[in-house]
Amino acid sequence: MGIKLYGSAMSTAVQRALVCLYEKEIEFEFVTVDMRSGEHKKEHYLAKNPFGQVPALEDDDDVTMFESRAITQYICHNYMDNGTQFIFPKDKKKMAGIASWIEVESTKFDPKASKLVFELIFKPMFGIGPTDMGVVSELEDELCKVLDVYETRLGKCNYLSGDDFGLADLHHLPTLSLIMDSDSKKIVEARPNVSKWAANILARPSWAKVLALKNN
Amino acid sequence: MGIKLYGSAMSTAVQRALVCLYEKEIEFEFVTVDMRSGEHKKEHYLAKNPFGQVPALEDDDDVTMFESRAITQYICHNYMDNGTQFIFPKDKKKMAGIASWIEVESTKFDPKASKLVFELIFKPMFGIGPTDMGVVSELEDELCKVLDVYETRLGKCNYLSGDDFGLADLHHLPTLSLIMDSDSKKIVEARPNVSKWAANILARPSWAKVLALKNN
Repeated sequence: MGIKLYGSAMSTAVQRALVCLYEKEIEFEFVTVDMRSGEHKKEHYLAKNPFGQVPALEDDDDVTMFESRAITQYICHNYMDNGTQFIFPKDKKKMAGIASWIEVESTKFDPKASKLVFELIFKPMFGIGPTDMGVVSELEDELCKVLDVYETRLGKCNYLSGDDFGLADLHHLPTLSLIMDSDSKKIVEARPNVSKWAANILARPSWAKVLALKNN
Repeated sequence: MGIKLYGSAMSTAVQRALVCLYEKEIEFEFVTVDMRSGEHKKEHYLAKNPFGQVPALEDDDDVTMFESRAITQYICHNYMDNGTQFIFPKDKKKMAGIASWIEVESTKFDPKASKLVFELIFKPMFGIGPTDMGVVSELEDELCKVLDVYETRLGKCNYLSGDDFGLADLHHLPTLSLIMDSDSKKIVEARPNVSKWAANILARPSWAKVLALKNN
């Protein structure tokens, strides 16, 4: 049956899985989960992701999984020869760098970046309430500390885990893209290496495909 | 030169790497980083971990890496035949489950659990200020939602990713252990399957070794 990805193209987590599938040039079926009607909290979907969140992925008849960063790593390990190469099992030094920077995105960048885009973009979009500019400013300060380390790192290599576009870079795309659409882009633009890196990864054709699906 | 792990045994992140090394029965050198004197913010350590946090790991002459969950995965992939088996490259279904539940710990359990143990244990321990019981109660409520999913899951299998003790379970040990030493243990004890699982994984000899090193 091949790969089925379940979710909504509005979700940054789903976009993370999508951009990986496009980079890997893998054919897949995108199954829309109607989150407005609460489909993600119904039994048939909870069987795929017990937390009732998107995305979930099915592969062949027997693999069901969830969590966007688990999905990208699964795809990269199991479809190693397709599209962009992200995994190098025989190069332990390279794999150590890839693993370290994947965790940086997940535990340092994303927790702040996700809250920032929630305040700036999703709160007004979904009528949840006004953006709290005090919270925005705090989150920007915390993200600046992370981006300062990126700035130094990206002065030494083109991408976070080395000279090739990697999974750690890719994982940033959905929230980074929203930050660049907001006033908070100033924290990226203030850092030349980060700014160049952001423009570079956001220009990937795989990301254009995700935006096309989102805006469809 | 083999493996060198840098850090302090007081750090939950360092404990995560340590318990993995013990499970894998790997000989390593533990190099104490004197965090009280700020050694983790000095240049020689920042070369190992640019965020100035513990742990960092060196392996052979050319691998330097950081982030506890990256370190455990590196160890499991590169020392596959040692000790407890955590990685099954040929079983894609099993690997999908392992990857999903590793992310659950990292993105759902740990962000709440770490803040909870900071309020309950580290704030008083380091004289940072009094525990905010309002924050504790909010974090407990949020963790309960995660543990409710665990409760259902652990009614179906003995461990989060299946019937064998896995890396996702192991990653919980440091913060789970602190929760069980605090009044918040009630949120674990209220759930029979989670309670049994917690007792089970906390009884592993590898974890006793970490506690021995911490209390040394």
